[in-house]
Amino acid sequence: MTELAAVLGRIDGELDNLIGRLFELVRIPSISTDPAYARHCDTAARWLANNLKSIGFSAKVVKTKGRPMVVAQHRKAGKAPHVLFYGHYDVQPVDPLELWDSPPFEPKIAGNAANRHLLGRGTSDDKGQLMTFVEACRAYKAETGKLPLNITILLEGEEESGSQSLVPFLKAYKKELKADFALVCDTGMWDRRTPTITTALRGLVGEEVTIHAANRDLHSGMYGSAAANPIRILSRILAGLHDQDGRVTLPGFYEGVPETPPDVLAQWEKLTGTERKYLKSVGLSLPAGEKGRSILEMIWARPTAEINGIIGGYTGDGFKTVIPAVASAKVSFRLVGDQDPKKIRAAFRNYVKSALPKDCKASFAEHGAGPAIRLDYSMPALAKAAAALNDEWGRPAVLAAMGGSIPVVGHFQTLLGMQSLLVGYALEDDRIHSPNEKYDLASFHRGARSWARILAALAA
Amino acid sequence: MTELAAVLGRIDGELDNLIGRLFELVRIPSISTDPAYARHCDTAARWLANNLKSIGFSAKVVKTKGRPMVVAQHRKAGKAPHVLFYGHYDVQPVDPLELWDSPPFEPKIAGNAANRHLLGRGTSDDKGQLMTFVEACRAYKAETGKLPLNITILLEGEEESGSQSLVPFLKAYKKELKADFALVCDTGMWDRRTPTITTALRGLVGEEVTIHAANRDLHSGMYGSAAANPIRILSRILAGLHDQDGRVTLPGFYEGVPETPPDVLAQWEKLTGTERKYLKSVGLSLPAGEKGRSILEMIWARPTAEINGIIGGYTGDGFKTVIPAVASAKVSFRLVGDQDPKKIRAAFRNYVKSALPKDCKASFAEHGAGPAIRLDYSMPALAKAAAALNDEWGRPAVLAAMGGSIPVVGHFQTLLGMQSLLVGYALEDDRIHSPNEKYDLASFHRGARSWARILAALAA
Repeated sequence: MTELAAVLGRIDGELDNLIGRLFELVRIPSISTDPAYARHCDTAARWLANNLKSIGFSAKVVKTKGRPMVVAQHRKAGKAPHVLFYGHYDVQPVDPLELWDSPPFEPKIAGNAANRHLLGRGTSDDKGQLMTFVEACRAYKAETGKLPLNITILLEGEEESGSQSLVPFLKAYKKELKADFALVCDTGMWDRRTPTITTALRGLVGEEVTIHAANRDLHSGMYGSAAANPIRILSRILAGLHDQDGRVTLPGFYEGVPETPPDVLAQWEKLTGTERKYLKSVGLSLPAGEKGRSILEMIWARPTAEINGIIGGYTGDGFKTVIPAVASAKVSFRLVGDQDPKKIRAAFRNYVKSALPKDCKASFAEHGAGPAIRLDYSMPALAKAAAALNDEWGRPAVLAAMGGSIPVVGHFQTLLGMQSLLVGYALEDDRIHSPNEKYDLASFHRGARSWARILAALAA
Repeated sequence: MTELAAVLGRIDGELDNLIGRLFELVRIPSISTDPAYARHCDTAARWLANNLKSIGFSAKVVKTKGRPMVVAQHRKAGKAPHVLFYGHYDVQPVDPLELWDSPPFEPKIAGNAANRHLLGRGTSDDKGQLMTFVEACRAYKAETGKLPLNITILLEGEEESGSQSLVPFLKAYKKELKADFALVCDTGMWDRRTPTITTALRGLVGEEVTIHAANRDLHSGMYGSAAANPIRILSRILAGLHDQDGRVTLPGFYEGVPETPPDVLAQWEKLTGTERKYLKSVGLSLPAGEKGRSILEMIWARPTAEINGIIGGYTGDGFKTVIPAVASAKVSFRLVGDQDPKKIRAAFRNYVKSALPKDCKASFAEHGAGPAIRLDYSMPALAKAAAALNDEWGRPAVLAAMGGSIPVVGHFQTLLGMQSLLVGYALEDDRIHSPNEKYDLASFHRGARSWARILAALAA
């Protein structure tokens, strides 16, 4: 039996223990966006550092202005490559809580024998995913007494809330973190049978806009129509973000947006059978984006503007005839190609200001920014990882684009001069960011096996 | 000294006691729209019934499907007219609580010696106002041993939440409630020196619309632009409610809307000096309604559509890249002339449905409806009340229109065949429905005196 086969056998044999450790981590409600959960983020970071120490890593919890970072190192593999693994231990808020079938921080195994899954906030994004790598390391160490690569692990606690501490941290810890390349486990598979390496990621600009009208809430009978209504103003502004054809109207928005090459579009065309399923699975049927583009193109290759939240006036039970003093919305832009996050933010703010009545004001809050990323297809590690994934899943790995944004990949490129290899096992029905988040048991189990194979392949 | 002078003297001499009784009532948090406060509405109703009994009224608390009614009678004035007094003891919610300078249900006296006012939710709308009438009765009875008119008092507990029980109640208690005419104290003064009788009221249609898109919240990176975003759809729908000139776009909306006669517009023109002050006092400067109409015309004589609340997606601290499954808004229409509330509601719903993508749905909830009202200028009680108000305030009473809606006045007309005389002492800066609601001590004190004079005048 080869060393790798023994490691894989250990992962299979100890699966219950792997699940037990993941569930311990999921039970810690490490929501980063809400300050009320800050101490739980501390707990999760300490739990991870201790877990990594038990494998033989030197591990520490590093304080930041926000949530702490976990940094761990195991560099005893001589001339083997040095990789930096990245994951994040923070999770999304759980509201609306009433839509969860079971408490989000009391993980459990659900589903039938053919398709079991792990239920709970963070089981997929990103606790379950990061633990696939950690468990691969644990099995390797337990079985062989060593790790095949020099490994540094960085686990972030602010990925779901704008990563405010990340850039200063990467700058300050550059020496410690710089490796030959990075491994990132925060992406998905094309479908539940097809392993996937993500080679392009959209960028993100997060904005919060508040419209200020009267200096206090007004009675709509006494002031209605005469006094500016900030909800009406905000609605008009948001409605004006897209034209009739679904294109974003901000001046200069499409600067730096490349057209997808016809051969790539043709490849995507072949995947189109799943397009309808993609919308059907969430109860929809009509693509809502730019006219004349396929769903995959909309999600993988086109920039977007989305409204992620809106609030204003009376929103409780019953009715209140109020004209509120303020109304606000959270808006995000997904970027592709060379779109400049700073220019997009400025264009949005200028548009809002130009659309305001002269007696009203707007204020803005920044919620993160990162450009789009395209990875280097010629990176040797890419071919090795693809072969390892093929061995595990029995199918060639798809090299895919991704609609979401992982700003850390851009920072690794610009601040640490490192390419990243993005391998993940999430599925589109994992309901990440939604109630009833889950991670397939197969994603978790075969994810850990995949990493063990990738570690071996990269060392070869 | 005349009987009336003695009654007025008693009101002056006992002012501290009047304030004390009002404060007792204000301390009861009788918010009708929120079921959590139902028991406090019961308490307020019982408090009022007991208060009226202590004056010599036969008084009872009548249960309804919602909040109870208070009905009291004192009919020992022989052939003197029989009047039905109407007020409401329920109050608006207090959110946002953090904007109150003092707790809303712990009333206190504030302001300087020249302009003292009573602070607290309901001090103006409508507890302070209804108590001006009750205290006038109390002073009359204490001073003279009788009341000059036959008086029935009806105090409602659902005025701020759609008055769902009112129509069935008026039908069931028609005999008891039918009087020669009604007195209603829920309106304001033109300014702090000018007494006002309100002769026209706008109608109201309250609607809540919810847009349903995907069957669950989605990650905007994975689904953004491809999946319908209900906030974007709702924004577009709300933005489309008005055209560039501020006119409401619903088909048939302006059917039955009369143009205001030129002589009335000319009268209003004279009041225009205060127009700017009206907006300036709330921090605004530009009329937001239909182009080419004055502010007074917008508020008194034109129909409107206002958005009173909106909510969707993530609205907490920080950011969440979600595309929500639903988004909703509360919308109200103020009606004038012969606009039909049913037609307006149907036109709104049809418009929303026609503006939906085919894979999305809308659901609606009804929050009250009532047509616009115009009272009979030839009603003899009007002249008597105007003269009494002139005596108290030293200025002729203005006969004004009002932007708000008091559906009960329409019901009195159609169900009980009664005209109403609307006299109130609220001021435009009373911040009703807003944080820091207040009632001027002068409104309260001289309001009670005014009712004493009106009672005497109507008996003469």
